[in-house]
Amino acid sequence: MKPLIKTRLFTPGPTPLLLEAQARALASNFNHRTEEFRRLVRETIEHLRYFFNTQNDVLLFASSGTGAMEGAVTNLLSPGDRVLVGTAGKFGERWVGLAEAYGMQVSKVEAPYGHPLDIEEMRRQIESAGPFRAVFVQATETSTGVTHDVKALGEMVRSLPETCLIVDAITGLGTMDLRPDEWGLDVVIGGSQKATMIAPGLAFASVSDKAWKQIERARCPRFYFDFAKERKSLAKGESSYTPAITLLVSLHAALEYLRAFGRENLIANAALLAEAARQAVKALGLKLFAQHSPSNAVTAVCAPQGMDSGAIIKAMRERFGAVVANGQGSMKGKIFRLAHLGYYDACDLFSAIACLEVVLAQLGCSIELGRGVAAAQETYLRLQSPALASVTA
Amino acid sequence: MKPLIKTRLFTPGPTPLLLEAQARALASNFNHRTEEFRRLVRETIEHLRYFFNTQNDVLLFASSGTGAMEGAVTNLLSPGDRVLVGTAGKFGERWVGLAEAYGMQVSKVEAPYGHPLDIEEMRRQIESAGPFRAVFVQATETSTGVTHDVKALGEMVRSLPETCLIVDAITGLGTMDLRPDEWGLDVVIGGSQKATMIAPGLAFASVSDKAWKQIERARCPRFYFDFAKERKSLAKGESSYTPAITLLVSLHAALEYLRAFGRENLIANAALLAEAARQAVKALGLKLFAQHSPSNAVTAVCAPQGMDSGAIIKAMRERFGAVVANGQGSMKGKIFRLAHLGYYDACDLFSAIACLEVVLAQLGCSIELGRGVAAAQETYLRLQSPALASVTA
Repeated sequence: MKPLIKTRLFTPGPTPLLLEAQARALASNFNHRTEEFRRLVRETIEHLRYFFNTQNDVLLFASSGTGAMEGAVTNLLSPGDRVLVGTAGKFGERWVGLAEAYGMQVSKVEAPYGHPLDIEEMRRQIESAGPFRAVFVQATETSTGVTHDVKALGEMVRSLPETCLIVDAITGLGTMDLRPDEWGLDVVIGGSQKATMIAPGLAFASVSDKAWKQIERARCPRFYFDFAKERKSLAKGESSYTPAITLLVSLHAALEYLRAFGRENLIANAALLAEAARQAVKALGLKLFAQHSPSNAVTAVCAPQGMDSGAIIKAMRERFGAVVANGQGSMKGKIFRLAHLGYYDACDLFSAIACLEVVLAQLGCSIELGRGVAAAQETYLRLQSPALASVTA
Repeated sequence: MKPLIKTRLFTPGPTPLLLEAQARALASNFNHRTEEFRRLVRETIEHLRYFFNTQNDVLLFASSGTGAMEGAVTNLLSPGDRVLVGTAGKFGERWVGLAEAYGMQVSKVEAPYGHPLDIEEMRRQIESAGPFRAVFVQATETSTGVTHDVKALGEMVRSLPETCLIVDAITGLGTMDLRPDEWGLDVVIGGSQKATMIAPGLAFASVSDKAWKQIERARCPRFYFDFAKERKSLAKGESSYTPAITLLVSLHAALEYLRAFGRENLIANAALLAEAARQAVKALGLKLFAQHSPSNAVTAVCAPQGMDSGAIIKAMRERFGAVVANGQGSMKGKIFRLAHLGYYDACDLFSAIACLEVVLAQLGCSIELGRGVAAAQETYLRLQSPALASVTA
């Protein structure tokens, strides 16, 4: 027989779509040079401020997240500027690539894949090799599933008047506590296909006053991702270039949902599912790729000894329609990545773990069926309703 | 914290919607008195014939399934006719109510709730208390989760020239082998919100030549559910009264999906999930309400001793957004019903069982977390890939 299979995304972007937001976009019929659309843009920006947990300006671009990352480089820097990049994976390397593309002098602090950045090493670099015009980092490194201590970096950088801290929080937003204003995160980058529960195609950037001052004197060439021009347009409820109208409508709807649900609840939900995923993985005898400071957005799991993670990913997809991500670059075939950011619930996680167990059994691993699910369930009970957890002991 | 919760239907109607079919309806903009719509109607009827596994006429009404059930009574019978109803639950009782409402002389063979009909008792009634104009039965009794042996009934009735066999297969279609032509099922009733994966609002009835002959002389009053009139309209690609246009569009799309997927695969999928559900329930120490001849459409489970099933249902819904059905009538509070007909896959079932386990633990039941899921997984491995099942032992 051929069983019925539904496709389910467990990838760290795109993530499952909030259908109510999709429906709103379907039902929309906007021209963007109207007062109705301007109101939508203004409200969306306000909702984004809530989502980012900031009073800073938040800018919006029709692009993927990388576009806004490039904008952070070109708007804040001039060719030849000295910058420090903390890199621990593919997205850290993207900061390096962007900074080099625009002629910066790049210093790096590297952490091995699967490890968080050594914050003390970052401090030493900042103190000894600076001054840097900018420090670039990820809030969470999606390619390896680790979280970096951006709060500590903020404390280092905020006292340096000539240095901005630029944080790629594309998977960090909505999955971890982030306080741009309190911690001194000068530019924070986000993307639509993550915890905001809509499709790819929009990038966000919050910009602090300190960053705006630096922008005034930055001389990198820029046109589409011109932060100052975009701020001016958005103040009028417009965008400098044609906006991605349906994505904006669905973003507005999704952020209304998120605002009603609560930013802290969304973060706690991701934290709960991440902890449950980690406990499930450990209960199955698999190794977590990130042993320390794991991300709430995505859990990276090492393939069992002698097995290509691609075999697990292929079987998950073919048998159960469950789409999980492979490792990137040199990690391809060694790890797989299971996401739980944005529109995921406990049911999703239980089913993903159950499918993983069946697939591992089918691939010949010696695992006890149901054991990972039980660990996830126990974690749910422990974190969600402590008073009742004892009944399962 | 307040976790994120998605609503998931595990009810035996409405069932999860096939989004591709919903999308097709959304994108439609039909007037029904057009050649384009007539073609859609004709194709839909052909697809329904495939779904019903019949060469008989299949009629289509804008109504719930009960409308077509009423039509079977009013089109085939005259007031005062003698009929036999096999009843084993709420839907068997509906046949009794319908036949009585139109003045039939009703004989009954009753099975206790949770049991299938005693086919030999049906035979004795047919042989001793007949002749009956019609024998009414369910293919599956949705209220208790049992399947009746309609094939055996067909063999009894088909040799009786004055008796038609009328089968409510509203949850039977797409979940069990049904051969109306070969078995002599004269009228078979279906509904849209079941294995056809679309919303409620359409009823179907297949009608055999034997039934058409009986219809010619039946004198019950009828107007909206006039089978002969509807056959005439459908032959032209029309309906006698305003059709439910968007439902028809989504039905057409869903039946295209089903035809590509395969009727037998759909039935085997329901059978696989049903067996996995039963094994999970037993592994958790719960009692199946239908010990014999269980339905592939829905699994009825007895609440643990001293517990109202409503408490389980409420917690499933509130904690996990998982909507399962209560018992009906006198079974309310005693059982809950978990559906697996139509657009369900293994992932759905694993997650439903996982949620059930957590809820039972929270309600103080002594259950081993993950054990029901493991039983479902083992069943999946055994039935889906026999050669690999041994690795999990």
